[in-house]
Amino acid sequence: MEKKVINLALAGFGTVGTGLARIIQENEDWIERRINKKLVIKKILVRDLTRIRSFIPGPEAVFTDKVEDILADRDIDIVVELMGGLDTALRLIQKSLENGMHVVTANKALLAEKGNELFSLAHERHLGLYYEGSVAGGIPIVQTLKNSLAGNRITSLTGILNGTANFILSEMTSRGQDFAAALNTAKELGYAEADPTLDIEGLDAAHKLIILIRLAHGADYPLSVLPVQGISGVKRTDVALAAEFGYVLKLIAQVREKSGHLQAGVFPALLPMDHILAKVDGPFNSILLKGNAVGPIMLYGQGAGDLPTGSAVLADIMALARDKARIDNTGFRERALPKAHILEPDLAVSRHYFRMTALDKPGVLSAVSGVMGEHNISIAQAVQKPGPEGRDVPIVFLTHRAPLKAVLQALRVIDEFNFITGPTVHYRILK
Amino acid sequence: MEKKVINLALAGFGTVGTGLARIIQENEDWIERRINKKLVIKKILVRDLTRIRSFIPGPEAVFTDKVEDILADRDIDIVVELMGGLDTALRLIQKSLENGMHVVTANKALLAEKGNELFSLAHERHLGLYYEGSVAGGIPIVQTLKNSLAGNRITSLTGILNGTANFILSEMTSRGQDFAAALNTAKELGYAEADPTLDIEGLDAAHKLIILIRLAHGADYPLSVLPVQGISGVKRTDVALAAEFGYVLKLIAQVREKSGHLQAGVFPALLPMDHILAKVDGPFNSILLKGNAVGPIMLYGQGAGDLPTGSAVLADIMALARDKARIDNTGFRERALPKAHILEPDLAVSRHYFRMTALDKPGVLSAVSGVMGEHNISIAQAVQKPGPEGRDVPIVFLTHRAPLKAVLQALRVIDEFNFITGPTVHYRILK
Repeated sequence: MEKKVINLALAGFGTVGTGLARIIQENEDWIERRINKKLVIKKILVRDLTRIRSFIPGPEAVFTDKVEDILADRDIDIVVELMGGLDTALRLIQKSLENGMHVVTANKALLAEKGNELFSLAHERHLGLYYEGSVAGGIPIVQTLKNSLAGNRITSLTGILNGTANFILSEMTSRGQDFAAALNTAKELGYAEADPTLDIEGLDAAHKLIILIRLAHGADYPLSVLPVQGISGVKRTDVALAAEFGYVLKLIAQVREKSGHLQAGVFPALLPMDHILAKVDGPFNSILLKGNAVGPIMLYGQGAGDLPTGSAVLADIMALARDKARIDNTGFRERALPKAHILEPDLAVSRHYFRMTALDKPGVLSAVSGVMGEHNISIAQAVQKPGPEGRDVPIVFLTHRAPLKAVLQALRVIDEFNFITGPTVHYRILK
Repeated sequence: MEKKVINLALAGFGTVGTGLARIIQENEDWIERRINKKLVIKKILVRDLTRIRSFIPGPEAVFTDKVEDILADRDIDIVVELMGGLDTALRLIQKSLENGMHVVTANKALLAEKGNELFSLAHERHLGLYYEGSVAGGIPIVQTLKNSLAGNRITSLTGILNGTANFILSEMTSRGQDFAAALNTAKELGYAEADPTLDIEGLDAAHKLIILIRLAHGADYPLSVLPVQGISGVKRTDVALAAEFGYVLKLIAQVREKSGHLQAGVFPALLPMDHILAKVDGPFNSILLKGNAVGPIMLYGQGAGDLPTGSAVLADIMALARDKARIDNTGFRERALPKAHILEPDLAVSRHYFRMTALDKPGVLSAVSGVMGEHNISIAQAVQKPGPEGRDVPIVFLTHRAPLKAVLQALRVIDEFNFITGPTVHYRILK
């Protein structure tokens, strides 16, 4: 006998938890029409029981500050982990699975760090561990990779996966703000947290990329070896110069497949204005995929927020509620995914943007372009801008395609010249 | 005991059938890694057994020109209907379901016309009737509506669903071609069929919209009452004038929900250049959805073609192969979906574009704008263009938001004026 009620325990009742509870209440009849079951929030785990809440779910919901109250409740079908953080969330998910409860989570950091062991545990117990809300808010990328594109080999995936970083870069582009001012605007508008480190240093995007690599390639790419560069060092000058050349600077998370090896990383890059991701502005996220059958596919939507992420979490809950016997956590049959074959990040080939700061004296351009030539880097465009009193002039080079390794070697040589008066700025250009 | 082979019968071996067979062969190991089963094409139904084929699947595949050879084969798990057309395909799908076989189809016309009875039949037999390939090629819109956005009420859905029409309009926009020339280009490049009627008259987009309305709203909207306007009447002049005002003309399929009622239609419309769908060019498709939780979501990809559509068909096959007991054809629990509550199409409110052709004499602008005023239509912009020898000058009005009904009434009055020398052209403007 199928039961007609699905009991949920919410662990965490912040932005996303509250959003989820609101949607479940507002769309109750609609949800029942689709799954023929009633979703009931039975327990809510919070840190502070005395805190005043802006929204309280139905009368069945009991607030608690003890994890045991959830784990010991044999009526709970699905534990929804929305606390974030690593240790407590890890223990909660492990214990829930060990106790036979399905788990839905939006915890990207935890899945990036401990995904393989958690998916193995869920696999052994034949339980769901679902996570649509962990990547790109309401955009259905997890489902798309697990099911809709399942018959494709994904040859490349390029994402704008962090709304905070994208908002900051959009502000710097459209208003000419510097990084600090744009970050402040983001904080004022609620797009950046008090401590924005994870977002602006690219770590949040890295967590999401690890999850997407697992889904797209069925491989475990250790977070510790993923090259990650954030946007905290991005200068207004480079954003403006990029625009002059017809490019926009974005924080990109990318994985490409080359003969079974994966080339991945998170880095700021210049995108041509007519690139399909160039117009993804403000707090929006977007993912461009290429599959060997489907060709290019792009998904776009809000990458965060109470209701968009709540929508994704709800989709996972409904999938489990429809049929708890049909579990597909990773999209692959293995108990544990194999380690990724990793292509040396330095072997990545792309076009490049350089901005050198040099004394304005004869021979500078020739010396610098000479070093480029020695490293087999072909220059597509070079512009020397007038600087203050002839000192510290910016010299911008856009190159043709060259391996990152050669570029970094050339940069080391160039930055040794005594006429180079500041560190050279370097970004990749995506086509 | 689960069996390790899934036997397929392909009914139809044209573009999509061949593409599907190619992907199944090329990605064989990848598919098995995901579903732990081997997909075997056992029968292929074709009209002409003597025709030379560009691609032949593995040795297990037997070609036949008799439907009975498929229906009588008790080893077939899934019948993949890629014949197109109505009568034969309908009988094949009905018989397949009656014989206990799952069905995957990309036949949008059939699902639009006979969807409700076919889904009822599949529901009664607990069999899958899957159709990801029927809408927007490789874009995972069916899955997204059925599962990922299942907890959302969809408040609006706006799609560019026909690649042929979109290619033609893109050519008219970018190269200034007239309709006939752009259609010829489309034919030469293989984007338009010899008889392009279904594509250019909006019927193909209408079929897809009916399917999307079913998925998004759980309602049966009869094709016969859907307002459909194609692009065969679109003039180069209007494409050029739209561009001058900052708009691009697209063939739009749209459904909006207003208090439980649906307002739907297929029509050419002006989109502002910065609209997220305005940059969808050539043979690409795109769908912009708004859900009451997820907010706006956009999906983009190739709307047709052997491999993109093959990718979608393969996703359906793999979903059934993974678990044939877990069937979800419509995304709703009912045996038959209820009839849609339809909002009178004339009540649609939007901005409007008019181009009148008038004699160049005093009082014309005042008379025309007077009629607009009487019908409560407020003018946002008006431009009178110089015409040949002062005759037949084009007068363009862009209005503020007004109901379609008032606009059509005003147009009837205006076209009665004796100084109006040709039929007035009218398009909606989407914001």
